[in-house]
Amino acid sequence: MKTITSRDNPLYKQLKLLAGSSQARRKAGRAVLDGVHLCEVYLQQAGEPEICVASESALALPEVASILDRCQSHRVQRILLPDNLYAALSQVEHGVGLMFLVEVPAAPMPARLDGPAVLLDNLQDPGNLGSILRSAAAAGIPRIYCSRNTVFAWSPKVLRAGMGAHFLLQIHENVDLDAILRTAAVPVAATSSHADHRIYDIDLRGPVAWLFGNEGQGVSPELLARATHRLAVPHLGAVESLNVAACAAVCFFEQVRQKTA
Amino acid sequence: MKTITSRDNPLYKQLKLLAGSSQARRKAGRAVLDGVHLCEVYLQQAGEPEICVASESALALPEVASILDRCQSHRVQRILLPDNLYAALSQVEHGVGLMFLVEVPAAPMPARLDGPAVLLDNLQDPGNLGSILRSAAAAGIPRIYCSRNTVFAWSPKVLRAGMGAHFLLQIHENVDLDAILRTAAVPVAATSSHADHRIYDIDLRGPVAWLFGNEGQGVSPELLARATHRLAVPHLGAVESLNVAACAAVCFFEQVRQKTA
Repeated sequence: MKTITSRDNPLYKQLKLLAGSSQARRKAGRAVLDGVHLCEVYLQQAGEPEICVASESALALPEVASILDRCQSHRVQRILLPDNLYAALSQVEHGVGLMFLVEVPAAPMPARLDGPAVLLDNLQDPGNLGSILRSAAAAGIPRIYCSRNTVFAWSPKVLRAGMGAHFLLQIHENVDLDAILRTAAVPVAATSSHADHRIYDIDLRGPVAWLFGNEGQGVSPELLARATHRLAVPHLGAVESLNVAACAAVCFFEQVRQKTA
Repeated sequence: MKTITSRDNPLYKQLKLLAGSSQARRKAGRAVLDGVHLCEVYLQQAGEPEICVASESALALPEVASILDRCQSHRVQRILLPDNLYAALSQVEHGVGLMFLVEVPAAPMPARLDGPAVLLDNLQDPGNLGSILRSAAAAGIPRIYCSRNTVFAWSPKVLRAGMGAHFLLQIHENVDLDAILRTAAVPVAATSSHADHRIYDIDLRGPVAWLFGNEGQGVSPELLARATHRLAVPHLGAVESLNVAACAAVCFFEQVRQKTA
């Protein structure tokens, strides 16, 4: 394990740039995983990180030591930092002092939309995206398509909210949703205030591509017109709509209910 | 409409204190509603605000003018601020320039837990609380009990995420959940990894008190032991749990499905 004690160390400077700049991470195709839970799920699901960074005081924690033990191969650079250098790197307040630098997995784009998936049009809130990824993974939906204007899926906030779901999913970003909807080979379902059916009244046991939109505007009219089903989550109260991540969870688990009935 | 142009105006100073300090608002029993949507729902559901504040440039917007028109009674103090004074007051970036100061509604505490409700134990994330309030209001669940250590329900972030649900609900804060569970007259349902049944397999058509807990730890073991049902949302993927607001939405709308079947 290599100890870095100088802020002028080239590797430390490179880590600081990547940890602090979303743009630098996107350009480098890298993501930062902060904390024990994300690092553990990454090791289980994806394998070894490129770089594993721990603070000196974190070394004493058994859960951190156990993760370091599992990063023994020569392919992992293990870096130990004094607490003050770690704190200057981390974007997480009161974090545990452990981070991985990993390559953002490349998800090969299928020729067409032909299986269960979630399509996200201009979704803006990192917490909502993370929650949707987590719900999709829990519901067994393996593939996510994000439009160009959707928030970056590998940002620290989305990773935190996703709780490791990122490593169970194929996530495609900067996708032209209109193009993939035009040739879709599975039914596409969107929730809409102009609905034809309630989600409870259609057969969701087969593969479905779920389409959700922006927190304020919903799905754009052009994409909504390409959906096979415009569905309603029926309300019993005087509320216009649900939070998009709550709405997605209700849809995904109505599908799970039907599949497992 | 009264125009204030000086930062030294006593009313402006009082507004600035309330807008900027959660502690000052709690002490005064007041909440700040920022933006057109929240103010509109408040007028519809709760009535007039104590104070209505607009920025000069917001006055030109028809939706703001329409809200000001509906605050004509002598009980509302209407304040116009130059844009720079408004900006120094508002906690919302790129807001529209309209806020209400309102009294936090007093929700009279029922003698016992005897109707549909949501109980929240140590919930920490404002976005999650707002989303749960919105889902509860949409599912027709009228009453919310928050434990002492749950995030303040009337903070700007919770209000924004609640999208006006606050004004459709009775919200009780600083509640001793253990005490009200001991005398509950309705079944209490909690989701748990040690579940007896799936949410799809029990009868939810009658009144239920739903119990949800902290984002990391879930419901405390003491409270969980008092629940009538420990339920599972079945997963099809290798994910431990859902986001708590997503989980609550799935539960509430499984109940709506059963009620409206």
